Amino acid sequence: MPIQMELRRIIISELDAHQYVVLKEVAGERNFPIVVGIFEATSIDRRVKGEESPRPLTHDLILSVVEQLGGEVRDVVISDLKDHTYFAKLRVRKDGELIEVDCRPSDALAVAVASRVPIFVAESVLGEALAGEDD
Amino acid sequence: MPIQMELRRIIISELDAHQYVVLKEVAGERNFPIVVGIFEATSIDRRVKGEESPRPLTHDLILSVVEQLGGEVRDVVISDLKDHTYFAKLRVRKDGELIEVDCRPSDALAVAVASRVPIFVAESVLGEALAGEDD
Repeated sequence: MPIQMELRRIIISELDAHQYVVLKEVAGERNFPIVVGIFEATSIDRRVKGEESPRPLTHDLILSVVEQLGGEVRDVVISDLKDHTYFAKLRVRKDGELIEVDCRPSDALAVAVASRVPIFVAESVLGEALAGEDD
Repeated sequence: MPIQMELRRIIISELDAHQYVVLKEVAGERNFPIVVGIFEATSIDRRVKGEESPRPLTHDLILSVVEQLGGEVRDVVISDLKDHTYFAKLRVRKDGELIEVDCRPSDALAVAVASRVPIFVAESVLGEALAGEDD
């Protein structure tokens, strides 16, 4: 059963190649960081702060494409963790069908924030992510 | 009649907020520069050089979304120039229909390079872009 998460914090450091988004359980306190690219971190940060962009950005284009092809982004899921790498899916509803599109968590989170859809994490991934913190 | 163009040069300067892609007519010598974001410039540059990314990047995700929703990117068009700002469209074929999705030229070019589809520029835009150089 996937767990619904929310953005707790975005940590952007221009001195570091790795930026972080901390996801926290909506109905609890469990949380873990995910490394994202500087581009996606900036995109997420800008939207969270409500900064308007004069032109649609790349993640808005993803939403336009989904919409114009007759779909609707329903949610995003961080679905897997292998060798310290997270995997994610955009879940798109189209003609009553649920289509899962593989993507990086960076893009999944940026799309979720842009389209205001829920973010889920597979229970197994959350368990592993938390276990990993004790390394 | 849109004119088919190709990438002639990508100019990336980390000291400058503006990066440039120079588009050149396939069947002629007319060419003009378009300002693109650093993210898209890097994405385009990497692909042109054939550098593989270990994970699908944001513009690959756009292609996956199009494909999984039953469409196919046919080409991209730089369709308009207003107040020194270029506008573009991704043209997607789906169920025999041609769907045009508005986007920034940055994203259009990154998608074109990622999906190896042709790049077109409206004749009027090319004319204005060249006239603009005499300013």
